[in-house]
Amino acid sequence: MNADFVALRERLAEISDLHRALGVLGWDQKVTMPPGGAPARAEAMATLGRLAHERFVDDELGRLLERLRPYEESLPYDSDEASIIRVTRRDWEKARKVPTELRAEMIRAGVLGNQVWVEARANNDFASFLPVLERNLELKRRYVECFEWDDSPYTPLLDDYEPFMTTTEVAEVFDAIRPVLTELVREAPAVDASFLQGSFPVERQQAFAERVLETVGFEPGSWRLDTTVHPFCTSFSNRDIRLTTRYDERHLDSLWSTMHEAGHGLYAHGIAQGLERTPLATAPSLGLNESQSRTWENLVGRSQPFWTHWYEPLQATFPEQLGDVSLERFVAAINRAEPGLIRVEADETTYSLHIILRFELERKLIEGALAPKDVPEAWNAGMRELLGVEVPDDTHGVLQDIHWSYGGIGYFPTYALGNVISLQIWAAVKRALPDVEEQMAAGELGELSTWLRENLYALGRKLTPKETIERITGAPRIDPEPYLAYLRDKLAALPAGA
Amino acid sequence: MNADFVALRERLAEISDLHRALGVLGWDQKVTMPPGGAPARAEAMATLGRLAHERFVDDELGRLLERLRPYEESLPYDSDEASIIRVTRRDWEKARKVPTELRAEMIRAGVLGNQVWVEARANNDFASFLPVLERNLELKRRYVECFEWDDSPYTPLLDDYEPFMTTTEVAEVFDAIRPVLTELVREAPAVDASFLQGSFPVERQQAFAERVLETVGFEPGSWRLDTTVHPFCTSFSNRDIRLTTRYDERHLDSLWSTMHEAGHGLYAHGIAQGLERTPLATAPSLGLNESQSRTWENLVGRSQPFWTHWYEPLQATFPEQLGDVSLERFVAAINRAEPGLIRVEADETTYSLHIILRFELERKLIEGALAPKDVPEAWNAGMRELLGVEVPDDTHGVLQDIHWSYGGIGYFPTYALGNVISLQIWAAVKRALPDVEEQMAAGELGELSTWLRENLYALGRKLTPKETIERITGAPRIDPEPYLAYLRDKLAALPAGA
Repeated sequence: MNADFVALRERLAEISDLHRALGVLGWDQKVTMPPGGAPARAEAMATLGRLAHERFVDDELGRLLERLRPYEESLPYDSDEASIIRVTRRDWEKARKVPTELRAEMIRAGVLGNQVWVEARANNDFASFLPVLERNLELKRRYVECFEWDDSPYTPLLDDYEPFMTTTEVAEVFDAIRPVLTELVREAPAVDASFLQGSFPVERQQAFAERVLETVGFEPGSWRLDTTVHPFCTSFSNRDIRLTTRYDERHLDSLWSTMHEAGHGLYAHGIAQGLERTPLATAPSLGLNESQSRTWENLVGRSQPFWTHWYEPLQATFPEQLGDVSLERFVAAINRAEPGLIRVEADETTYSLHIILRFELERKLIEGALAPKDVPEAWNAGMRELLGVEVPDDTHGVLQDIHWSYGGIGYFPTYALGNVISLQIWAAVKRALPDVEEQMAAGELGELSTWLRENLYALGRKLTPKETIERITGAPRIDPEPYLAYLRDKLAALPAGA
Repeated sequence: MNADFVALRERLAEISDLHRALGVLGWDQKVTMPPGGAPARAEAMATLGRLAHERFVDDELGRLLERLRPYEESLPYDSDEASIIRVTRRDWEKARKVPTELRAEMIRAGVLGNQVWVEARANNDFASFLPVLERNLELKRRYVECFEWDDSPYTPLLDDYEPFMTTTEVAEVFDAIRPVLTELVREAPAVDASFLQGSFPVERQQAFAERVLETVGFEPGSWRLDTTVHPFCTSFSNRDIRLTTRYDERHLDSLWSTMHEAGHGLYAHGIAQGLERTPLATAPSLGLNESQSRTWENLVGRSQPFWTHWYEPLQATFPEQLGDVSLERFVAAINRAEPGLIRVEADETTYSLHIILRFELERKLIEGALAPKDVPEAWNAGMRELLGVEVPDDTHGVLQDIHWSYGGIGYFPTYALGNVISLQIWAAVKRALPDVEEQMAAGELGELSTWLRENLYALGRKLTPKETIERITGAPRIDPEPYLAYLRDKLAALPAGA
C-alpha cells in the first residue's frame, strides 16, 4: 500500500479518536453529567476540539493530500482510498479557513450555552437565554467571515450540515412544499386520537421500545438506549451506538422518537468497516442522515404494515388504554395531521412547517434582518401564520429546541430536507424489495435494514449528498414530489371524522 | 504573574483536560458502553493517552520548569505555585523515561484486557484471562526497565500509586500487621450476622444509600451514583464526582461499598480550586486516598455513633429483615471478623490479609519467582494460609479483582496502607473535633467532612505522602500501631457469641 496513504490513515485515525472522545464527553454531558461538571467539561471539550482541529489543519496533512493526487487519480472514484483522499482534502481546505481558537471558542460557548438552555427552558426564561443566543450568533458571524459565499451568509453555516447546498436551493425546496403543506394541514380531516393521551407507564414503554429495537437490524451488544432532556443519537464507532429518548407517562410519543433515533443509529451502525476512523465514517449530509431517521420513524413506524405485526403486542402492553381501539383507528390516529406547538412531537405533515419557520428565523438572524431579542415575537407570529397555533410561553415556543444553545445554526433545514429525501429513497426501496410491506406486516425488518445498509449506510461520506441520492434513486437532485404525493395519499386515506 | 508560570499552567491545563477525557471514556467503558464498543474505545483511549504523554514529556515543558526554579525558590514550599512547579518537575522527569508508544500500548492492552476479564470472571475461565495477565506483565516489565531501583523491580510499579515508598518499606508494614491480624482473626468471637443475609430490594438499598450520601458533604449537583461490575470512583473535576456501586438483593454490602467510594469522592470534591487542571488535583498517593475511603466506610460507616442516628431509618427501610434486630446486634454484626473469599466484601480485620496475599503474588510475578499460569494455585494456597478458607473457583478467587486486567499492578498494597493511615488521621480528627462521635450520633457529618476537606483534601498533591501525613498527624511515617489498637479494641468490644 502507498506509504503516504498509510501515513494519511494514521493521522486521520488519531483525529477521529479525538472526535470520538468529544462524542463521549458530549453524550455524557447530556445523559449523565451532574450540572456541577459543566465548566470543566466545557474546558475539556474545547481542548479536544482544539487539538483535533490543530492536527487536522496541519501543513503536513496538506502536503500528504497533495502528494496523493496521482494515487487518488489511479483509483476508482468511489474506492475507499480515492474517496478518503478526496473528501479529506475538501474538509482540510475548509477547516484551514477557520482559526483554531475560534473553533475551540465555539465548542466552549456551546457546552456552557447548553447548560444555560436547560435551565432557561425549565423556567420559561428567554431573558436568561438571550446572552447565549447572542454569543453564539456573534461566533457564527465570525465563522461565516472565514468563507466566501454568493447568495447568503447563511450558506457557509448550512454547508457544515448539508454540504454543497446553498441557501437559495433550500429556499426553493421549501417554497415548493410550504403552500402544499399549509393547505394539507388546513384540509386534513379531524381524527379521534383521544386514546393516545392517558396513562402509559414508563417502564412498559421502555420495554416495548427495546423489543422493537431488537428487530430493526442492530447487532446485539452494539447499542444502548438512555434517557435525556432532548433526544439524540450519537456513536463512537459502528459498534457503539447510543440512542436516547425521553418518556412521558401521558403519551406514547417516545416510541416514534426512539424509532427516529434508531434510524440515525442504523446509519452509523451500517458504515463500512473500511471507513472507520476516517472523516468518511458518517452520512454525506444531515439531510441524508435525517432521511433515514424519518424512514424508520414514519415510513416504517407509522405504517399500516408495521402495525399489522406490532399492534397486538402494543395492545397487550397497554390493555387499559388500547384494548378497545382497533388497528385502523390506531393507525389513523398516528397518521393524522394536527397542528401543535412542539417540533419533536409534530406529525409528519406539520413537521416541515416547524422547520420552515426555524429556517426563516435563522436566515434573518444571520443576515441581520432580525435581532435576537425579537426572536420570541417572530417565533410566535410564525407559528400563528404557518400552523395557526398560539404559543402560550417560550418553553413551548422558542426555547423548545437544543440547537441554538450549542450554536447549531444551519442544522434545522436538514430535518425537512430529510423528510423530502426519505420518500425518494423509499421509492427505490419499494422497487428493490417489492414485498417490503408484506415483510413488515410479518414483523420482518431484516431485509429492509440490510438493503439500506448495503446500498446507502455502508457508503458513508464517500459520495456527495447529490451523488448518493443519484446512486440510489437515479435522480441527481432533491425532488419534493414523492414527499408531497405521499402526504396527499396518506391524508386522503384517513377516515374522515373517525 | 510570572509569564513562564502562566505558560506552564496552560500546558498543564491542556494535559489535564486530556486525562479528564480519558477518565470520562474509562467511566463510560465500565458503566455504560455496549461490549461492541471495546475495540474502538481501546484505540481512542490509547490515542488520548499518547497525546497526553507526548505533550507532557515535551522538551519545552522541561525548559519552562528549569527556568521556573528561581520563581519556585522565591515562594513558600507549600504555595500553590511552588508546589505545582516542584511536583510537575518530578512527574516530568519520571514520564520522560517512558516511551510514548509503551504508554499507549499499556492503555490499549488495559482496555482490551478489561473486556476479556469481565467475560472470564463471569465464566470462571482463568485460561482465557491468562494471555491478558501475561501481556500486562510483559508490558510492566518493559515499563520497569525504564527506571532504576534498589530493592525490587516492584518498586517502580509501586511508585505510580504510592510515590516515594519502596517495596521493602511496604513489606515492613505488612510484616508488622500480618501476625497480629491472623491472630485477631483466629481469636475473633463468632457473632450472629444471619439477619444480614436475606432479601433487601435493590431500589430500597439505592434510595437509602442516596439519603446517606446527601449528608456526607457533597455539594448538590456535583456527584452521581451508578452501577457497574467492579465499583470505583472517578472524577472529571472537583464538581463532577462519579461514584459507582453494585447491588445484590441478598445482602447490604453495597452500602459500605458506596460509603467507601464516597470517601474517594469527597477527597476529589475537596481539592482546592487553585489546583484544578494541574497534576496536583488528586491525593498525594493512593494510600492516602484509600485512607479516606476506609474512613468513610469503616470509621464512620461501621461505627456505633453513625448507626445511632441511621439505624432507625435503615430498620424502617427493611422492616422485615431488621425490625426485630437491636442496634447493638446490628453494629456487632457489621464489625465482626470473619474470613471470606471476596476482598471487596471483606470485613475490616480480614481485609488487609487479602491485600497481603495480592502484594506477595504481585511481587513474585514481577521478580520472576512465580509464573502467571501458576497464580490460581498460589492464590488458593495463600487464602488457605492467611485466612483459612478454601477457594471454590477462580471467579471467587484470582479472577475477582479488576486490577490485573487493566495492568494495575502495584496498586493493591495501597489499600492496606490506607487502612493503616486512616487510623493515624482519625486520631488527629478526634483531637481536633472532640465531639465528633456525638455529632455522628446526631446525624451530623458536616463538621467532620469540612475538617477533612480543609486539612487534607484541599492540599491535593502539593506535599509528598509522608509530608502530608506529618502535617496532619505530627508523625513523619506510616505507623501501624493505631490501626492495630483500633482493631484489638473493636474486636474486644464485640459481645462474644452474640
